Amino acid sequence: MKFPQPYTLEEVAGMINARFSGDPGFIITGINEIHMVKPGDITFVDHPKYYDKALTSKATTILINKEVEKPEGKALLISDDPFRDFVILAKKFMPFQSSNKAISETAIIGEGTIIQPGAFIGNHVKIGKNCIIHSNVSIYDHCILRDNVVIHANSVIGADAYYFQRKPEGYRKFESCGRVIIEDDVEIGALCSIDRGVTSDTIIGKGTKFDNQTQVGHDTHIGKNCLIGAQSAIAGVATIEDDVVIWGVVTINKEVVIGKGAVILATAGVDKSLKGGITYFGSPAIEARKKWKELACLRKLPEVFEKL
Amino acid sequence: MKFPQPYTLEEVAGMINARFSGDPGFIITGINEIHMVKPGDITFVDHPKYYDKALTSKATTILINKEVEKPEGKALLISDDPFRDFVILAKKFMPFQSSNKAISETAIIGEGTIIQPGAFIGNHVKIGKNCIIHSNVSIYDHCILRDNVVIHANSVIGADAYYFQRKPEGYRKFESCGRVIIEDDVEIGALCSIDRGVTSDTIIGKGTKFDNQTQVGHDTHIGKNCLIGAQSAIAGVATIEDDVVIWGVVTINKEVVIGKGAVILATAGVDKSLKGGITYFGSPAIEARKKWKELACLRKLPEVFEKL
Amino acid sequence: MKFPQPYTLEEVAGMINARFSGDPGFIITGINEIHMVKPGDITFVDHPKYYDKALTSKATTILINKEVEKPEGKALLISDDPFRDFVILAKKFMPFQSSNKAISETAIIGEGTIIQPGAFIGNHVKIGKNCIIHSNVSIYDHCILRDNVVIHANSVIGADAYYFQRKPEGYRKFESCGRVIIEDDVEIGALCSIDRGVTSDTIIGKGTKFDNQTQVGHDTHIGKNCLIGAQSAIAGVATIEDDVVIWGVVTINKEVVIGKGAVILATAGVDKSLKGGITYFGSPAIEARKKWKELACLRKLPEVFEKL
Repeated sequence: MKFPQPYTLEEVAGMINARFSGDPGFIITGINEIHMVKPGDITFVDHPKYYDKALTSKATTILINKEVEKPEGKALLISDDPFRDFVILAKKFMPFQSSNKAISETAIIGEGTIIQPGAFIGNHVKIGKNCIIHSNVSIYDHCILRDNVVIHANSVIGADAYYFQRKPEGYRKFESCGRVIIEDDVEIGALCSIDRGVTSDTIIGKGTKFDNQTQVGHDTHIGKNCLIGAQSAIAGVATIEDDVVIWGVVTINKEVVIGKGAVILATAGVDKSLKGGITYFGSPAIEARKKWKELACLRKLPEVFEKL
Repeated sequence: MKFPQPYTLEEVAGMINARFSGDPGFIITGINEIHMVKPGDITFVDHPKYYDKALTSKATTILINKEVEKPEGKALLISDDPFRDFVILAKKFMPFQSSNKAISETAIIGEGTIIQPGAFIGNHVKIGKNCIIHSNVSIYDHCILRDNVVIHANSVIGADAYYFQRKPEGYRKFESCGRVIIEDDVEIGALCSIDRGVTSDTIIGKGTKFDNQTQVGHDTHIGKNCLIGAQSAIAGVATIEDDVVIWGVVTINKEVVIGKGAVILATAGVDKSLKGGITYFGSPAIEARKKWKELACLRKLPEVFEKL
Repeated sequence: MKFPQPYTLEEVAGMINARFSGDPGFIITGINEIHMVKPGDITFVDHPKYYDKALTSKATTILINKEVEKPEGKALLISDDPFRDFVILAKKFMPFQSSNKAISETAIIGEGTIIQPGAFIGNHVKIGKNCIIHSNVSIYDHCILRDNVVIHANSVIGADAYYFQRKPEGYRKFESCGRVIIEDDVEIGALCSIDRGVTSDTIIGKGTKFDNQTQVGHDTHIGKNCLIGAQSAIAGVATIEDDVVIWGVVTINKEVVIGKGAVILATAGVDKSLKGGITYFGSPAIEARKKWKELACLRKLPEVFEKL
């Protein structure tokens, strides 16, 4: 998330009562969690295991719970609870705003777009031209739909990321401040959910078509002209490259990359990244022809065991 | 889909600027895609692999992209792009109509039927007597519900078929012009989606009961007194005969036939047609007792491998 | 379900035209199905196989279709159709009430709670303080949400149990008269469904967090501080103890118990009870490290078969 204007290190430290290490006038332009950081961003880290990753990331300000050596050209914000303070900043700059109208007055709706009865369009949503938003769809604040997008009934665009941190007393929520961006010519089936990014964007590429009841986690990027079958679930921070075909009821793990043109057959469970141009099956998913061989062997196993 | 009135071959050719082969006065009464054709129908074909199937189908007019020999007693419409022209006809006779009221004035609602707040009832929908349509349900145009039907909250009846054709520049949509028909005494759980037929009807038989979050694809026919467990997904153009019991989270492939009285256990994935009266399990689903034998062998495999 | 006031055996027998065996003044305080009975309750039984279970349960009045010997300190209601008569009582004391407003006047909404547009709040619903009910959520009658609960868009709380009895002429519905109770600090994702109890309560424990598109069946109890991944389905009458972590697309069978702190990996299918503190995988789910061994062996099987 980009701040509405740049702030100095000293100003941001004041917002969260943190100490800092670096030039008080060091410029901060936004905040992002570690997967999505850009220069100018704050990111946060609260576990020594991830200190290095955060300190060497593209983020130029690191909100951290130990006074470590400041990396060259960067700044530190030192806090006893970076997670809490990161959430304070996220909520400050992107607070949840309740709505008292089904279509917010701050939403921008393009020419030729049809909004069917019962659809909810949140604050600052932008919808392009010639879209159809079917009945009882819910679009959370700040989401962006480009032109010729169709969203079928009762789908939910932009619900919060599923992102919690365990504490002895229970789970703490990382308040989402990201968005969903849906490019031109995308069609989303009925009863689909596409979560917004934690601090950045979940993106659905041009021309991609979703069947009903699919789920896409936060910060996932789906390429152009993909097909996503019914009841498929793609976890957060995944990358689906262009022209991927995912059949029905496929499960894809978080943070994996599915290469261009891969085909994943129905009911597969993908636990790790897969190369493009190949057909996969099974759970965990492997090359379909290998999985079929395994299954053929499995089928013969009772007979073989009887002989032995 | 049946046309509101019959047209001649010459008249239809004019609507899509196609050439024709046959008696100009040859009668056309509707259009249907290949799975659902009846005499009087146009069907379309644009790949040589399927020419024979289309030409010998029950359709009496074939919209085709090659000047082939006209079958006896039939007519041809010759077009450079049959898919495009088929969609033109579908849209002409069954255009999408936006709604500005939650319950369309053209909908017919039977005596004793309760419509809960937030439900959307589209144009020309017919609902019988003593039904309950729970809150935030969406029913698309032209769907038919008979008597004593219960639809639980947020379900979607009649969304478009998931039917696209790949072109170099991206996917083209086959605009749906079919319906969903739900017979007497059916109960549909919460958050279910039942897509309408592409050109024909998706049918749910009398007395069948769906649990929550189930998905039924276009043109599928489900028989009488079936049970469909939660989160099950039945793809398009499938046939589920009477008295079938499908447990939760079952996936059923398109175009398969599940015989009368079959039982499919939870989490099964059905890839091909199954005989009635038998219990199935696994993915791909096979007879349950065989699958259990396989799994018992698989469980012993690590021990057997260690010995070898 | 507790009756609004106690009734005598004779009074209840009159409501359903049943004979009775026992003191006419014997006190009845509610009705419950067999899994949830308490002293004072009626339960019903109509199959000799279950007579013993019903007669020795905690229920003090048994609605039964045979004049058996009355257990000491209990009463019998004798009917030719206990299921039918049980439903008559359930409907008498907890009838379905239609709503003509999106938020019922009998609902109680706590201070600081936000109800977004399109949400449906049924009769006698109680919602605590500082909750957020997102757009197009549906909450059926009598459900209870405590404080700081978040329900994301288009989720359905309290739809009817999936509970039918087969008869030669079709299925008969057991009308639900239970509730859903959601404790403090629970977050429910988008498009989730949590069914109410048949006669008792479905309970979601304090601090538990659901991802999108999850399904929970009737009378299931989920403990405190659990995580339930996207598209997971937990069937009816299950018990999930505290601190259980269920990853995405997990299926859990009815009536099972998942022990405290168990971890169930994505796509697993749990068919029976599992001990706490252990990680599980596969369908049927077993200890993950065993399943991985099996899968490693399966992978080698084609090669081994070739050698043999």
